[in-house]
Amino acid sequence: MTELETLRHSAAHILATALLEIWPEAQLAAGPPVENGFYYDVSLPHRISPEDFPRIEEQMREIVRAGQPFVCVPTSRQEAEKLALRGRLGALSERPVPSEFKLDILRGIPEEEAITLYQNGEFLDLCAGPHVKSTAQVGALRLTHVASAYYRGDENNPQLQRVYGTAFSTERELEEHMARLEEAKKRDHRKLGRELELFCFDDAVGAGLPLWLPRGAAIRQELQAFLGELLTRQGYETVFTPHIGELGLYRTSGHFPFYRESQYPPLPEPAEWASLVQEGCGCGDYADRVEKGLVGGYLLKPMNCPMHARIFASRPHSYRELPVRLAEFGTVYRWEKSGELGGMTRLRGFTQDDAHIFCSESQIEAEVSGCLELVQTVLAALNLQDCRIRLGLRGPDSAKYIGEPSLWEKAEAALASAIRQAGLAFSEEAGEAAFYGPKIDFLVRDCLGREWQLGTVQLDYNLPVRFGLTFIGADNREHRPVMIHRAPFGSLERFLAILIEHFGGDFPTWLAPEQVRILPISDQQLDYAREAAAALRQRRLRVSVEEKNETLNAKIRIAEKQKIPYMAIVGKNEQSTRNLSVRSRRRGNLGAMILTAFADQVVDEVARRSL
Amino acid sequence: MTELETLRHSAAHILATALLEIWPEAQLAAGPPVENGFYYDVSLPHRISPEDFPRIEEQMREIVRAGQPFVCVPTSRQEAEKLALRGRLGALSERPVPSEFKLDILRGIPEEEAITLYQNGEFLDLCAGPHVKSTAQVGALRLTHVASAYYRGDENNPQLQRVYGTAFSTERELEEHMARLEEAKKRDHRKLGRELELFCFDDAVGAGLPLWLPRGAAIRQELQAFLGELLTRQGYETVFTPHIGELGLYRTSGHFPFYRESQYPPLPEPAEWASLVQEGCGCGDYADRVEKGLVGGYLLKPMNCPMHARIFASRPHSYRELPVRLAEFGTVYRWEKSGELGGMTRLRGFTQDDAHIFCSESQIEAEVSGCLELVQTVLAALNLQDCRIRLGLRGPDSAKYIGEPSLWEKAEAALASAIRQAGLAFSEEAGEAAFYGPKIDFLVRDCLGREWQLGTVQLDYNLPVRFGLTFIGADNREHRPVMIHRAPFGSLERFLAILIEHFGGDFPTWLAPEQVRILPISDQQLDYAREAAAALRQRRLRVSVEEKNETLNAKIRIAEKQKIPYMAIVGKNEQSTRNLSVRSRRRGNLGAMILTAFADQVVDEVARRSL
Repeated sequence: MTELETLRHSAAHILATALLEIWPEAQLAAGPPVENGFYYDVSLPHRISPEDFPRIEEQMREIVRAGQPFVCVPTSRQEAEKLALRGRLGALSERPVPSEFKLDILRGIPEEEAITLYQNGEFLDLCAGPHVKSTAQVGALRLTHVASAYYRGDENNPQLQRVYGTAFSTERELEEHMARLEEAKKRDHRKLGRELELFCFDDAVGAGLPLWLPRGAAIRQELQAFLGELLTRQGYETVFTPHIGELGLYRTSGHFPFYRESQYPPLPEPAEWASLVQEGCGCGDYADRVEKGLVGGYLLKPMNCPMHARIFASRPHSYRELPVRLAEFGTVYRWEKSGELGGMTRLRGFTQDDAHIFCSESQIEAEVSGCLELVQTVLAALNLQDCRIRLGLRGPDSAKYIGEPSLWEKAEAALASAIRQAGLAFSEEAGEAAFYGPKIDFLVRDCLGREWQLGTVQLDYNLPVRFGLTFIGADNREHRPVMIHRAPFGSLERFLAILIEHFGGDFPTWLAPEQVRILPISDQQLDYAREAAAALRQRRLRVSVEEKNETLNAKIRIAEKQKIPYMAIVGKNEQSTRNLSVRSRRRGNLGAMILTAFADQVVDEVARRSL
Repeated sequence: MTELETLRHSAAHILATALLEIWPEAQLAAGPPVENGFYYDVSLPHRISPEDFPRIEEQMREIVRAGQPFVCVPTSRQEAEKLALRGRLGALSERPVPSEFKLDILRGIPEEEAITLYQNGEFLDLCAGPHVKSTAQVGALRLTHVASAYYRGDENNPQLQRVYGTAFSTERELEEHMARLEEAKKRDHRKLGRELELFCFDDAVGAGLPLWLPRGAAIRQELQAFLGELLTRQGYETVFTPHIGELGLYRTSGHFPFYRESQYPPLPEPAEWASLVQEGCGCGDYADRVEKGLVGGYLLKPMNCPMHARIFASRPHSYRELPVRLAEFGTVYRWEKSGELGGMTRLRGFTQDDAHIFCSESQIEAEVSGCLELVQTVLAALNLQDCRIRLGLRGPDSAKYIGEPSLWEKAEAALASAIRQAGLAFSEEAGEAAFYGPKIDFLVRDCLGREWQLGTVQLDYNLPVRFGLTFIGADNREHRPVMIHRAPFGSLERFLAILIEHFGGDFPTWLAPEQVRILPISDQQLDYAREAAAALRQRRLRVSVEEKNETLNAKIRIAEKQKIPYMAIVGKNEQSTRNLSVRSRRRGNLGAMILTAFADQVVDEVARRSL
């Protein structure tokens, strides 16, 4: 438990004490620290609402001011059970009703474990600790919300009230935390995605299957073009592959039937299916035959690698042609339970900025360096440099990994050396490798301090064997290439979500779905506004004219809410002088500008992908 | 029957006559004209091979020289049957064995139809005609190949030998035809696609599911960028939608279950499928429940329109926002029987350059004009201007069409008026409309004179009703928009096939997968060659260096075979003067050029998309 978690665990006891002081009949269940705070589950006839929070918080602050020491009381299992039966656990005193949840928790503790109680003031609780020394150390606390929760998360158990709060050593830390939460809520990509019309979901189309609206698609196209340029510079070649493939392909790769749980079910082969229907075959029997490979079918592709491996295998390769770098913005489909879906970060269909590098072992280091450079360039261009690098190595359980230990050693050394050569700091973490090889992950901290896993580079000795890939070496013999899987964004959808939250929807001009909005002061300037828009569009800028019949102030407010980087206001004056009055979202009022000068400036800003 | 078909039909009789003169025991079946020529089916113990062709052709020419008149002999069914039983039909004389196929054909002719025989020389055949006046009119003939075919195409019937030939009025026409066929064979996109490494198919991935190799993908990206620019200029907005959707979506659109035959089977909803498997439900019962909508599932999308309609419906629209033009390079999946698959022109997965325009009725004409302009621009840019325009109208069978006749009249008039306004010639063809509305098709003639259907513009009053689409008009009331479906290319795969055959793989520089190849005379110039390549790549040209250890002549031959637009040869001289010796595939030897001057020239050629 970290110091902060210990402090919050103590805060949970303070909450429990306060609740009992107000409602002595309360039956308490468990009260652990959690991410961002703590909670305590309580059974109580009174329905706690946020309106009760000031009263409870006041009581909690009283307990803090009292500076009650937390005292650990080692005890025997029998003694603890007696106390629970007398209602004394999770309570301020003995009570006529037993402490039923505490009794149940006690009985769930394995025989070999010691039993401890913790006491502060009159409040005695079954608790493994640890705690801060005194309630006085909890310098700042706040209740945040209340929810209902089943005891032990099981809907057959009684329903409890879960009171959430957070706590810090100082009031300043608490204030900062609350501000960060507030900011995160404002930046929530689901909320901004809807408000800025970037994407939507539609039950008629299906859960977890996003529709990219024009404004979101504009961002995606910019990201694809940006990455595309980098890929061309690094010698990648683009391919396009279908979204379904024969089941056999995924048997070869090992994706089917082993990862069946996370895949859409197979599509039957029509002729076989028709004849099985006619035969009166049962669904279970059919599923069985599919699994055993006795009948054919197709799988929605869960990964692009098998198809890229088949492209590599479509003709012989000489060592002189390596590395072969095949890139694709490939849309893949995976089955996620509906409860696990969330905005653009957990989807059933998403587009990877995928690529596979087929190279000889001696090329691994140079290629991995290229990948690291690519990821760094991408992250720097988007102001996401605050990141740490994790080198995922094998864990102790060798059964979890395939391939020769000697190859693993080589691969791990090659990855480590490539990171070192790039002059990057990294941590080695055993057990974080993929089953087929070690990998490098970039863990990026956004402007709210949240960590996202982006940019993965994985070394794979496995698929080349499964697909029997070879190249002819300088010695005129067949050799086995190595595959590197890498994706700087991960998926375009998830990356968009991160960018939305990172920029708070306030995209740099090059990414902004609408870069300039022209606001005519009245309909008199509508023609000139449209003309100016057409001129800017000629320069490939994304421009619109606010044609609504509103006051200028209202038009400005709408554009601000939509976070348009530039507003160009045109009135009588601007029209007669062929000027624009420009307001930059970042740089404020820029005054009157000649149309072409303004266009030059924005075009340059976009071309430089300035932040 | 066209004149040429009549001539070829007569040539078939000449072939039959010749066959009987050589093999009097031959039993003849049917001998119709077909595309590019004619055939006659014959049952004969001797196995006819191309080695027999000179002998048969000589005999045929003899018959032509004899100038036998074709005589029509009306007869009764009874008389014809008697002749057949005496072996006299499809024969030169009576024979001991009945004319079994002719007898069968005779018995298949409906009672109400008249029976006619045709005779030339001694050859008497059951035949509806018409024929040319005399065998002398068949000025030029040639046998092309022989294949086996089941009588009436049914494998339970006897196997026959099908002798194919072609015929023209003059020897010159025949020569031209044979040269065209030869050229078409050389230009076959399947052959060139393999040789130029543009795409491949892979049984492991699945029939009809193409893999775009890097060189083909380069062409596709150029086509997409080209069309993308035109779309932006015309005010289209890009969207991205998933490749599967809930079955219900396609019930709403009418694609399921009505077009089930041409679709991949539905993907089961995993939870429902699992419970049906457990229940012991039969496949047939399951299929039935899917069809009736009692269980859920997903369909691989056969068309993009339903998703675009849902995007339009995702928020309210004012008349001021119309037209909304949503474009997507959308990959769709349709089930084609494996016998119907062919190269890139008939596939199971292909990418439409799709778009849907949602507009008010008063905007139809302007929008259709925009579509026509777009298609014309695209075709002109690719030297495919030789085309005719067909306006497909309703046919007489009103049950085949949905919607009010008054709307149809309006729609048909709007389409006709838009074509006229564009100053284009067109033919109206009744019965060529889609079931939901009239349409315009561009039928393009390629350089071999073959006609391809490209560029379709369809007016649709149907889907807006099915999806309940509305917009708020100037009158503040809800109105129904109209949808225009249009695709200038049709599909990227099919369009690539046409371009390959049209250009014979000799793509204009802007489309060429590899634009410049640098050929060092010896390894001494390899570094300079790589440097020059890097400089050209900086200018965004697709360049490679021939690194193979071959003679210059061999290197040139390879580059020629791969149809690279520019070869830049570098020897000692070029290296010391920092020049290139340039050979243009189209313009021949361009002599020594300064690297930057050469780059400027090619970059300009690419930017202008010069042909």
